[in-house]
Amino acid sequence: MGKQRVSNLFGLIFVAQLAVGCNGGVTSTYRRRLAEPVDMPLDADVIQVPPGYNAPQQVHITQGDYDGSAVIVSWVTADEAGSNIVLYGISNTTLNMSAEGNVIQYHYYNYTSGYIHHCTLEHLVFDTMYYYTVGVGGTNRTFYFKTPPQPNSDASYTFGLIGDFGQTYDSNSTLTHYKANPDAATLLFLGDFSYADGYPYHNNVRWDTWGRFIESSVAYQPWIWTVGNHEIDFAPELGETTPFKPMSNRYPTPYEASGSTEQYYYSVRRASAHIIVLASYSAYGQSTPQYGWLESELKKVNRTVTPWLIVLMHAPWYNSYVAHYMEGETMRVQFEAWMVQYKVDVVFAGHVHAYECSHRVSNIAYNITNANCTPVSDNNAPVYITVGDGGNREGLVTSMTEPQPSYSAFREESFGHGIFYIKNKTHALFTWHRNQDGEDVAADSVWLSNRYFYPSNDS
Amino acid sequence: MGKQRVSNLFGLIFVAQLAVGCNGGVTSTYRRRLAEPVDMPLDADVIQVPPGYNAPQQVHITQGDYDGSAVIVSWVTADEAGSNIVLYGISNTTLNMSAEGNVIQYHYYNYTSGYIHHCTLEHLVFDTMYYYTVGVGGTNRTFYFKTPPQPNSDASYTFGLIGDFGQTYDSNSTLTHYKANPDAATLLFLGDFSYADGYPYHNNVRWDTWGRFIESSVAYQPWIWTVGNHEIDFAPELGETTPFKPMSNRYPTPYEASGSTEQYYYSVRRASAHIIVLASYSAYGQSTPQYGWLESELKKVNRTVTPWLIVLMHAPWYNSYVAHYMEGETMRVQFEAWMVQYKVDVVFAGHVHAYECSHRVSNIAYNITNANCTPVSDNNAPVYITVGDGGNREGLVTSMTEPQPSYSAFREESFGHGIFYIKNKTHALFTWHRNQDGEDVAADSVWLSNRYFYPSNDS
Repeated sequence: MGKQRVSNLFGLIFVAQLAVGCNGGVTSTYRRRLAEPVDMPLDADVIQVPPGYNAPQQVHITQGDYDGSAVIVSWVTADEAGSNIVLYGISNTTLNMSAEGNVIQYHYYNYTSGYIHHCTLEHLVFDTMYYYTVGVGGTNRTFYFKTPPQPNSDASYTFGLIGDFGQTYDSNSTLTHYKANPDAATLLFLGDFSYADGYPYHNNVRWDTWGRFIESSVAYQPWIWTVGNHEIDFAPELGETTPFKPMSNRYPTPYEASGSTEQYYYSVRRASAHIIVLASYSAYGQSTPQYGWLESELKKVNRTVTPWLIVLMHAPWYNSYVAHYMEGETMRVQFEAWMVQYKVDVVFAGHVHAYECSHRVSNIAYNITNANCTPVSDNNAPVYITVGDGGNREGLVTSMTEPQPSYSAFREESFGHGIFYIKNKTHALFTWHRNQDGEDVAADSVWLSNRYFYPSNDS
Repeated sequence: MGKQRVSNLFGLIFVAQLAVGCNGGVTSTYRRRLAEPVDMPLDADVIQVPPGYNAPQQVHITQGDYDGSAVIVSWVTADEAGSNIVLYGISNTTLNMSAEGNVIQYHYYNYTSGYIHHCTLEHLVFDTMYYYTVGVGGTNRTFYFKTPPQPNSDASYTFGLIGDFGQTYDSNSTLTHYKANPDAATLLFLGDFSYADGYPYHNNVRWDTWGRFIESSVAYQPWIWTVGNHEIDFAPELGETTPFKPMSNRYPTPYEASGSTEQYYYSVRRASAHIIVLASYSAYGQSTPQYGWLESELKKVNRTVTPWLIVLMHAPWYNSYVAHYMEGETMRVQFEAWMVQYKVDVVFAGHVHAYECSHRVSNIAYNITNANCTPVSDNNAPVYITVGDGGNREGLVTSMTEPQPSYSAFREESFGHGIFYIKNKTHALFTWHRNQDGEDVAADSVWLSNRYFYPSNDS
């Protein structure tokens, strides 16, 4: 049987009303009617092992330092360790620089990983195209990426948003749509990577297939990683009691560059954005490392350099679907006041398999005895946007709380992705794209005005 | 200079009104007026190294299994590792059994620990006095403990409660008072051990002095350990980024016996009590190991065997002092509904350097949009008792929120300890003892009726 050809599958195309306006625009009655998503089979073309002995596979990059002049390149070799060297340069014909990384393997129950290589390219020039080769001395493969502008307030930059991704035909449709966007330069990934944990014994082969599936994007632009619950891979029944084992071995983050001591919460600056990644599944109580790190990091944000303050997490604080309702409360009560105090522009989350966009609200007046525990309009508060609809095998959420609470501006359960266009230091445009629509159709969109430089009432 | 003699220091004696009734009895106007507490000096008699080459020091025991038929014996040797053997028996003249443990050392910044030995004595007979010797083959020392009755609903049993202990003169006064109670058979320790982290470089010598200070109790009866914020010892500025390093090396818990995978949350059954220890400084969000473990453990509680369901944690959920006000909210919103669902009898906490006792209240009706976020009387809810007044160097809290909220039944900032007398399967008596009073004086007391067998309105 030949490989299943799914690489250009866009899913079924529906005719639907265009919904515009996260902040109260026309609300679509559109509802997804596709069959339950299923993972692409092992012989699907988009997850095939690249040809050649010991060919590097699952090639992926992420930001490697605080400001974007470093990149961590990761890849897996299956047959033998092979070289840890990455050759790179600014001409695709002359890769005149090299860096040496390391290689690790891990075991998970009855699975042994391939040879996982991580190599950091440092001191890159900002705003420059680089080419890089992995597999030096054997079957080699060459990719490229563009570094971001040096952090500065005037930089325009475009981020993608995908969460709860998995590796279904719908995931593939999402990725195909996302890759068709010529502007999106970096993906902010909102957690829940491969969904391998849904297989017997958390079959880590599905981590490998996922790594190959996403390569066509993540080998060419950095994905900024947020940890989700499907990365915990905690399975005492299998003797696997170290949380996050597959993710921690496969997907490094530059956490040390921001003074963090855990891979799962950290911060990067990129162009005109300061991006803070929080860990929903690590400790965050007062006095914990994450708490202390966030308290310190927020004080370091310099909006005159990075006007846009973006926070990523997996479990959303504002969610009006039945699924995972109030699950983010425990973290919200701990950190929400800081989000308002520091005028965070937008908080992106996943976890809920749907799309939702909030008004600018806060719920920080509660003092136990005053009954002030209802979200209220707050011009200093972030917009909360859930993009948990990447396409995973668990399917979309099935029900919303009714009536729609006042904090919720727009919600719809369709697979898709988001794009966050930073235009300048005062304005950014967020658009949400359903898989069923053409790539240039925004099923929801909202202009955000910067909370520091232009704190108008945009809600 | 000779050793400072502090072993029988009781602190100053005040004349005070007796306050009886956590649940609204006579409220004392008594307020502590002692000077700020200071740590006992290194030459204080109660923290001296025992005589003899390589003599075992810092001897302490804790429960070693789920039901109390095992004991973990720990001790430190300073000069060389020495033997890992514990000799034990039911006659103090014939220690005819032996067990072999292990020995570890750890480094913390510029400190290297002594040789820390841990040895578990298993298959002990319930309700039996045992004698044990450590330091076999060298300078040896002999102690004794009594095993608890096999878990059963008719067992009466008495627990002590101490939190936020430290090693001041006031701590010593607390311990002296506690040891004078002939009934207290096991101490439930509510977190914050040595306060070594308050010294430059977290001077771990103060972990050693603390271990010697408490030996006169904990070598003879198990202390059940709850982790506090002062055990985190997270100090990236010193290169120390592994939380809980000193505690985890020094004070083992039997966490595996209850299916836990972290030393800091676990459960033991002892006589007629099922004691659940929660970790305020580990992750507890949904999908985390602690969340899953607690969900599973609560289902295993069998009130017909252990009628009394007791929960320990460090940071309290109901606290009306200004210090640490609302700090427990993040964990409360996650777990409080389970406490009510499973009819927990009492929740003990520390952290706030004072004493407080709540009414039976719950605050679990909130759904974000309904404004129902005020604690209400709830006959299925636990009583919440804070005993964070062991005596540490940081001193007592200085102010209360005013007016006293309705959930708070009684509060006072004095150093002291608690005693929880389980009389039978329907009734238990909690008493709180100020250091300034005689040992037999209860500054506050409350009879609790069992939520499972006798759920009367005792609030």
